[in-house]
Amino acid sequence: MSGTIDARIAELGLVLPTAAAPIAAYRPVLIAGGIAHVSGQLPFRDGDLVTGRAGESDDVANAAEAARLCGLMIVAQLRAVLGDLDRVEQVVKLNVFVNSAADFHDQPKVANGASELMQAIFGDAGVHARAAVGVAALPLGALVEVDAQVAVRAA
Amino acid sequence: MSGTIDARIAELGLVLPTAAAPIAAYRPVLIAGGIAHVSGQLPFRDGDLVTGRAGESDDVANAAEAARLCGLMIVAQLRAVLGDLDRVEQVVKLNVFVNSAADFHDQPKVANGASELMQAIFGDAGVHARAAVGVAALPLGALVEVDAQVAVRAA
Amino acid sequence: MSGTIDARIAELGLVLPTAAAPIAAYRPVLIAGGIAHVSGQLPFRDGDLVTGRAGESDDVANAAEAARLCGLMIVAQLRAVLGDLDRVEQVVKLNVFVNSAADFHDQPKVANGASELMQAIFGDAGVHARAAVGVAALPLGALVEVDAQVAVRAA
Repeated sequence: MSGTIDARIAELGLVLPTAAAPIAAYRPVLIAGGIAHVSGQLPFRDGDLVTGRAGESDDVANAAEAARLCGLMIVAQLRAVLGDLDRVEQVVKLNVFVNSAADFHDQPKVANGASELMQAIFGDAGVHARAAVGVAALPLGALVEVDAQVAVRAA
Repeated sequence: MSGTIDARIAELGLVLPTAAAPIAAYRPVLIAGGIAHVSGQLPFRDGDLVTGRAGESDDVANAAEAARLCGLMIVAQLRAVLGDLDRVEQVVKLNVFVNSAADFHDQPKVANGASELMQAIFGDAGVHARAAVGVAALPLGALVEVDAQVAVRAA
Repeated sequence: MSGTIDARIAELGLVLPTAAAPIAAYRPVLIAGGIAHVSGQLPFRDGDLVTGRAGESDDVANAAEAARLCGLMIVAQLRAVLGDLDRVEQVVKLNVFVNSAADFHDQPKVANGASELMQAIFGDAGVHARAAVGVAALPLGALVEVDAQVAVRAA
């Protein structure tokens, strides 16, 4: 089996972004014990970072779209490392960090932007455990950051 | 061996809450490679969410009790998925996110509410690694959120 | 092979701090399934906690140095548990929590303090996946907190 997930991504009309280079001294993905640990990914639209703060400059819909873009970047990073996305066995855990005003409480709805993308792309294998919290600030002013643990099959 | 932990929970006078349904498109618990990844759990008392911010509306004691309630929900989620809590081999890691005023610095004392519960219920198998941080905002205004990684035995 | 990493630490002119005792009811390191989960470590210089907030009381350089000190404590905790740091197979993931003013966006540069230390000490085995976020408050007023997952060889 090979290319099934790429075909589904195309059917969904999705285009994976270019896998972003790390801002610094770390790897985008590190695989250990059959788990791909994907570094925290930021939301890029047409190569531009989506910045802002939920509940202040941005509403739930904007932030959920930013979470979706983080999710797309996670998939792009996995594709770059794995070669074939059919090697994804199960999305295990997403940690969703939402740049949040103190009175913004819809982090779960925001995080759904990433969660629903994973389910759309990987089906049951995309349904994961999750934590979603509101943070004070994110790298480069990003609106959302998402990292992931993904069980993968040997090449 | 079966039911030992249920018996200890009863001896401690604890009652597990009904395992809360996910607020959104994810699973409460996902098991991969022998590790149960428990999604971030919120504190419920008699079915009502405990909201607030440590150092502002709430003191250390209130927040520690909220962390304990998150811990109870983690155990309830494990029980719902595992069937038998005796399948818990080791609580590996807790991440404790405390909705915190900027000058609140007692996240470790807050997190102890969850940590001490795990030790009371699982004994040595309940003593874990941990991170505790203060966040800007949490889902639905929750006072504390806790997620967990737990090593489990095959059924 | 034994003592190679200790020798490199000495060559680098680094001195590991005394492994800090947990502030509370948890373990500094828990090993499960070949992964050492290191609890969130705080930055100590000559036994004193480094406190502050990036973008407010502290600049990027101060915060990056604090992240480096958290990294040193992670290595000290690993050494205390593993006996021999040559048992480190791969630093898998660092989570870097930076106590951040709302308009501070250089969490990646801060986190590099820890990331570059890992690479200096462990070489390729020190290059990891990473998440770096800005949080509202940290234990005891710490400037940075870092936790880690590290793949280790059997003793």
